[in-house]
Amino acid sequence: MEQLREILTDIHPYVNAIHIREKQKSARELFQAVEMLSKDLPLSKIIINDRVDVALVTKAAGVQLAFHSLGAKVVKKALPHLRVGCSIHSYHEGEKSLQDGADYVLFGHVFSSQSKPGKTPKGLEELSRITQLDIPVIAIGGITPGNTPQVLHAGANGIAVMSGVLDSHDPLITVHAYVNALKDGVGKSEKFI
Amino acid sequence: MEQLREILTDIHPYVNAIHIREKQKSARELFQAVEMLSKDLPLSKIIINDRVDVALVTKAAGVQLAFHSLGAKVVKKALPHLRVGCSIHSYHEGEKSLQDGADYVLFGHVFSSQSKPGKTPKGLEELSRITQLDIPVIAIGGITPGNTPQVLHAGANGIAVMSGVLDSHDPLITVHAYVNALKDGVGKSEKFI
Repeated sequence: MEQLREILTDIHPYVNAIHIREKQKSARELFQAVEMLSKDLPLSKIIINDRVDVALVTKAAGVQLAFHSLGAKVVKKALPHLRVGCSIHSYHEGEKSLQDGADYVLFGHVFSSQSKPGKTPKGLEELSRITQLDIPVIAIGGITPGNTPQVLHAGANGIAVMSGVLDSHDPLITVHAYVNALKDGVGKSEKFI
Repeated sequence: MEQLREILTDIHPYVNAIHIREKQKSARELFQAVEMLSKDLPLSKIIINDRVDVALVTKAAGVQLAFHSLGAKVVKKALPHLRVGCSIHSYHEGEKSLQDGADYVLFGHVFSSQSKPGKTPKGLEELSRITQLDIPVIAIGGITPGNTPQVLHAGANGIAVMSGVLDSHDPLITVHAYVNALKDGVGKSEKFI
């Protein structure tokens, strides 16, 4: 956790959001992690996975909802100001997220990813379909500085990276490589998970 | 779940609260369970374990917080109208819950319990100490109709029962036995987990 904190402190000026995706942690542990991180990072960049309550009490910017989470519709109804993203894997789920009033979708995995070994990636074609929907799309899964231009070309509003940054030899240099790759896309948001 | 629903539909008129303590369920599953149960039970009697967010969006009456949960203080600050109970195991935790603004504490296990095999029960003496605190105390753990008078004599404001009712041959008859045992304590609340 201390190492992660150091990395995030270094890289946060170059990203729009930090998604805390510690699925095994209890609400108490997540709360403590956010309290610790918020000493060095702005809360306005912190997105909590699944736990709407932790996002609420820590005043984090938003929550990332998966299939097993509460639905975006009920969450937006109860907490209209909380930024709500939905993790989706298909165009159909994208349509549903839009109808439910989600603020954005996280779609993937676009390319083969270390985090999803053996699973067929969804590919750029499906990404292109989803970006036709009237909702911001953040692409995730196997995204490198090298393939970032293709992702933007498919209409993604931003990218999310996990191992691509955190497992790299020098996370800060890697972030700069992503930022440079994103420069073609004006106003694109970048997101690290 | 269907069997539980039938039991709860039968017994809810005789209890003050139903605590949904399905620790392995996802937020989505808990939400669906509450939606289903709320067709037959009033939401004003439903207490959700740990997931403040599920309680919020379902409009359940309250949330039961354990050690691994969010703290009562931050929850009451964010959601002052949500009824917040803390599961405690000592006088010290009782004091903390009182300071944090919890609405009540759930103390146990008072007697040996099937749910806590091999663990030394906290006993009536510790219960008596805790009921000196200025916060309602619900006793839990090994409580039977037979020992309910002792629990009330120790100052408990109510009792919570799980296997004592759900595993009994006829839950409704068992509930009536508890209700009769509680009658000595005017205004006592009864609570089933």
